[in-house]
Amino acid sequence: MVMQLPQHHKVNFTSSKTFTSSFISEVKETLFPDDPFKYFYKPSSSTSSLSSRLERIWNLSAYFLPMLKWLPKYTLSKFQDDLVAGITIASVTIPQSICHARLTHLPPIIGLYSCFVPPLIYPIFGSSKNVAIGTVASASILSASIIGDEVSPIENPDLYLCLVFTSTFFAGIFQTMIGIFRLGILVDFLSKPTILGFMSGTATIIILQQCKGMLGLTHFTIEADAVYVVHSLYHHLQESSWETLLIGLVFVCFLLLAKYIVGPLKKGLNPLSIGHLTFNNQHLRTVIKAGIVTGSLALAEGIAVGRSLALMNNDHVDGNKEMIAFGMMNIVGSFTSCYLTTAPFSKSAVNYDYGCKTAMSNVVMATCIMLVLLFLGPFFRYTPLVSLASMILLSTGSLIKLKEIKELFKIDKFDFCICIISFLGVVFISMDIGLLISVSISVIKILLNAARPKTYKLGNFENTTMYQDVEQYPSSSTFSGILVLRICAPLFFANAGYLRERIKRWVESELDLVTSSGCQNLEYVILDVGGVTSIDKTSIVMLSEVWRYLTKRKIKLVLIDPRIEVMEKLVIAELVNLIGKEHVFISIDEAIISCQSSLLHHSDNSI
Amino acid sequence: MVMQLPQHHKVNFTSSKTFTSSFISEVKETLFPDDPFKYFYKPSSSTSSLSSRLERIWNLSAYFLPMLKWLPKYTLSKFQDDLVAGITIASVTIPQSICHARLTHLPPIIGLYSCFVPPLIYPIFGSSKNVAIGTVASASILSASIIGDEVSPIENPDLYLCLVFTSTFFAGIFQTMIGIFRLGILVDFLSKPTILGFMSGTATIIILQQCKGMLGLTHFTIEADAVYVVHSLYHHLQESSWETLLIGLVFVCFLLLAKYIVGPLKKGLNPLSIGHLTFNNQHLRTVIKAGIVTGSLALAEGIAVGRSLALMNNDHVDGNKEMIAFGMMNIVGSFTSCYLTTAPFSKSAVNYDYGCKTAMSNVVMATCIMLVLLFLGPFFRYTPLVSLASMILLSTGSLIKLKEIKELFKIDKFDFCICIISFLGVVFISMDIGLLISVSISVIKILLNAARPKTYKLGNFENTTMYQDVEQYPSSSTFSGILVLRICAPLFFANAGYLRERIKRWVESELDLVTSSGCQNLEYVILDVGGVTSIDKTSIVMLSEVWRYLTKRKIKLVLIDPRIEVMEKLVIAELVNLIGKEHVFISIDEAIISCQSSLLHHSDNSI
Repeated sequence: MVMQLPQHHKVNFTSSKTFTSSFISEVKETLFPDDPFKYFYKPSSSTSSLSSRLERIWNLSAYFLPMLKWLPKYTLSKFQDDLVAGITIASVTIPQSICHARLTHLPPIIGLYSCFVPPLIYPIFGSSKNVAIGTVASASILSASIIGDEVSPIENPDLYLCLVFTSTFFAGIFQTMIGIFRLGILVDFLSKPTILGFMSGTATIIILQQCKGMLGLTHFTIEADAVYVVHSLYHHLQESSWETLLIGLVFVCFLLLAKYIVGPLKKGLNPLSIGHLTFNNQHLRTVIKAGIVTGSLALAEGIAVGRSLALMNNDHVDGNKEMIAFGMMNIVGSFTSCYLTTAPFSKSAVNYDYGCKTAMSNVVMATCIMLVLLFLGPFFRYTPLVSLASMILLSTGSLIKLKEIKELFKIDKFDFCICIISFLGVVFISMDIGLLISVSISVIKILLNAARPKTYKLGNFENTTMYQDVEQYPSSSTFSGILVLRICAPLFFANAGYLRERIKRWVESELDLVTSSGCQNLEYVILDVGGVTSIDKTSIVMLSEVWRYLTKRKIKLVLIDPRIEVMEKLVIAELVNLIGKEHVFISIDEAIISCQSSLLHHSDNSI
Repeated sequence: MVMQLPQHHKVNFTSSKTFTSSFISEVKETLFPDDPFKYFYKPSSSTSSLSSRLERIWNLSAYFLPMLKWLPKYTLSKFQDDLVAGITIASVTIPQSICHARLTHLPPIIGLYSCFVPPLIYPIFGSSKNVAIGTVASASILSASIIGDEVSPIENPDLYLCLVFTSTFFAGIFQTMIGIFRLGILVDFLSKPTILGFMSGTATIIILQQCKGMLGLTHFTIEADAVYVVHSLYHHLQESSWETLLIGLVFVCFLLLAKYIVGPLKKGLNPLSIGHLTFNNQHLRTVIKAGIVTGSLALAEGIAVGRSLALMNNDHVDGNKEMIAFGMMNIVGSFTSCYLTTAPFSKSAVNYDYGCKTAMSNVVMATCIMLVLLFLGPFFRYTPLVSLASMILLSTGSLIKLKEIKELFKIDKFDFCICIISFLGVVFISMDIGLLISVSISVIKILLNAARPKTYKLGNFENTTMYQDVEQYPSSSTFSGILVLRICAPLFFANAGYLRERIKRWVESELDLVTSSGCQNLEYVILDVGGVTSIDKTSIVMLSEVWRYLTKRKIKLVLIDPRIEVMEKLVIAELVNLIGKEHVFISIDEAIISCQSSLLHHSDNSI
């Protein structure tokens, strides 16, 4: 019997791409996913004329200095909006930056300095319209912890200050380098759950540390580790029994009543600190470590903030350019008595809410801070310490995002575990180790996922060309004599061995089924590789081993829809010849029709 | 106008799996992909009877001691085959093991010892029928290099020997641990190109080092680094000008004529070496490092060999059980004057070719070696050193697999680069650093691949339900007003940001096309997520951001065929409610029909 087969669509076995062109396009997708050079491609109407040349030079300059894009079009009405937003964020910034400076164990004035210079640098290089520049709690605490381990901020405040500036310098260098070498991909590996757990952990540590201020304990640990803090608290409370506790409570009341003050704030703008950068061997490792860790954390937060706000606005933010902008502002900052700054979420959200139009709002904010530094500084000496302590508690308390953590638990238990591990690591070991453990586990998860790709057995909805996972859609029916499997993952050395065993397992369980149910023998294994986006040598060898395994059992291997990159390698490695071009189809449906017709033919013959 | 739509297939929005059950199944796939417990599941016909209980106990014992599976069924005819194979591999083993012992800078007798005890241990625990146990060149050279850096095998041969035994002990412990904790997945990350480059590199070093023997140089470096070796060669040749060269050449001729001998070989079986294991702090780090590095290399080779031979035979090899078997034989080996052994490819291939039936052929080989050790030892003292040197050259030369490297270049340029990096690292830096760099690059490649998943724009073959990448099949046609994209990768934090930007880029270029060509406005973006095997919180947020971005531009987002694991999370995170259940389809075709009918409806209304 000869069946009338429907017209087959030809499988494309040839690739037009050379190795070089596909390599370049891969590098481009990896390092330049934001396609930064698209402006250069655009054909200009009048080629090689002077105006077109000037336009190109302008575009080139505007690429490096995004300010050139919006400044020429800047209008008074835009400035009005930026002015409102800028003044608003300045009012948020002043107490916040003083509070963050205290968290870093720095003089309060450093916080104000840090909110003056960097916001002036960012608008030149930054591509986001919405972010507001300032200090952040998490990075502040982290640098205090790493540098505080090496040099005590209480015993040796001058050296400590110098090291903070130096670590800010290295953070800036690191951020700029990441931007220049377009390694923004590194920051992608700091996942949300990691950061969430990290922030909650640091917040917990700080709240415990605030007990010091609240209970008036003087011989207190500055270690950032919950065990130390709780132990120290317990120990110091223990050592002078109930009297201390009473005094402590009285002290709290006293604190609440009396207006403890910040202390004198010097009048005047940022002094130069470039001479204070210390690169001596003794502390170099620590400051570089602090720079890299805090720099990448600040980068992750700043870029995430910029990107989410840009999405609200249908804007475009160039990640790598942002990195350079953050890096430049921190380098310049470290020369002018500023410590690490980035784009904090809360402040940027306020900036966005109050309708900022361009990065000019940062300049407005900086101007406000300048006025404060020049004229109003002395007034802030009356900022009550208690209000600061409560601000610290509030701002750190808000870092513990219980709602988001609950949601993580609801949606993704693994993400939740990552978050908890990050939290526990920070609280019980140390901030950097906690972060490291959490990132490592995330990366290991990725590797495990890649090494153990999922395979599905597919079934068909009757009278359709749809093939679905039989587990998800139990109503779909399978075919006697044919096993349809789908692989959805790049094939490479680390999963080749697993997939070989997995396919064998599928085939064996199918054969068991055949033996027990007595239905038609398995004659075809159809492998839908449409979801395989790349393949390497090891996997090609694996496929040929699978083919040999099946052939020994008189089962034919059929491939469905290999992608262009995969097909190219299968052809070169002569696997297509091994399997036979007639066993490569463009869709499962066509393969099934062809297989069924040949099965029918067989059984006709056997009858 | 109301179109008659074909019957829709219902999308399955519900998942029957709890977190625990899906977590368990994931752990099972990751750590137990070979399903080792399948024998326990099998329902026995007569439950709880004595015989069934005995059977279960027997199965349990047979699980831990695979020997129990084949030994009861062992027949004389099988033994005849094993005898032939065993004697054949013994004849290969004797010169080879002496040669490998020399490569490790050990007395030749140690090579013979190493081929006596481990082959007796392997059959008890090992699950492969085809592998032959013995020493390998690569691991021999590697341990010589790592331990030789710490203790000179020439100046302090006794300590060196003790350290080799100790490192063998740690290799065994490491291998057993990996097997017990079912971490075979670790070995999966040693890719073929890495091993290929590594072996070629080590072979190059050795061939250079053999110049020492050939040119009769005595003050020669034992450093395993091409620069050292070539420099040392050059320096020593230089220092006494042409006379040395002449003497060297004469020496070579003399070597070729005179029968230099191996030296006396003691009669007798392996002496105990358990007392020689040295765990003092001074060398502990080195021996542990040597143990782990050589242990994993030996494991990777042994398991790959076992698996490929099993595939030829339609056999099953349990990777984790193999690891325990290799580990046990090395632990016992380190107690009985053996150094690291595994299943070398060449010897196992001979074993397979000569028709071995069970692991008994190893016992036969061990018996032959025993006879040699007991009675024939003294005869081997007349093995000419020159023939050994040429054997070393031959066996190391065969490690440089130019043909395979060429094939790598042809099929996969990236694999080729990995191989060359591994080669250069080994030759110019050191063996372990070379290996480390190559493995790191492979892992980074995996991470980059995972962080930059591919997306495709799909088109349709007319009058079919097939949707293919328009780049691969330019003849497929797209739809006006509808953009169909396919994502084939797990979505997670490290690629969420990239995918958001990539989807935006696809949409923007589509919008540009609309503007320039003046065709119908883009109204639908159809995202085929059938190939997305998992999703996390960050990616769900990303999808909702994409939805928001599209909604602002009055474009509707349509999801196709989310997999069961993905659907579950989309429902919990309420993304399905956000997008609308009516915008989730089971196949692209149904989505297109529905979108087109509503587009038609719109244009009807607008007319």
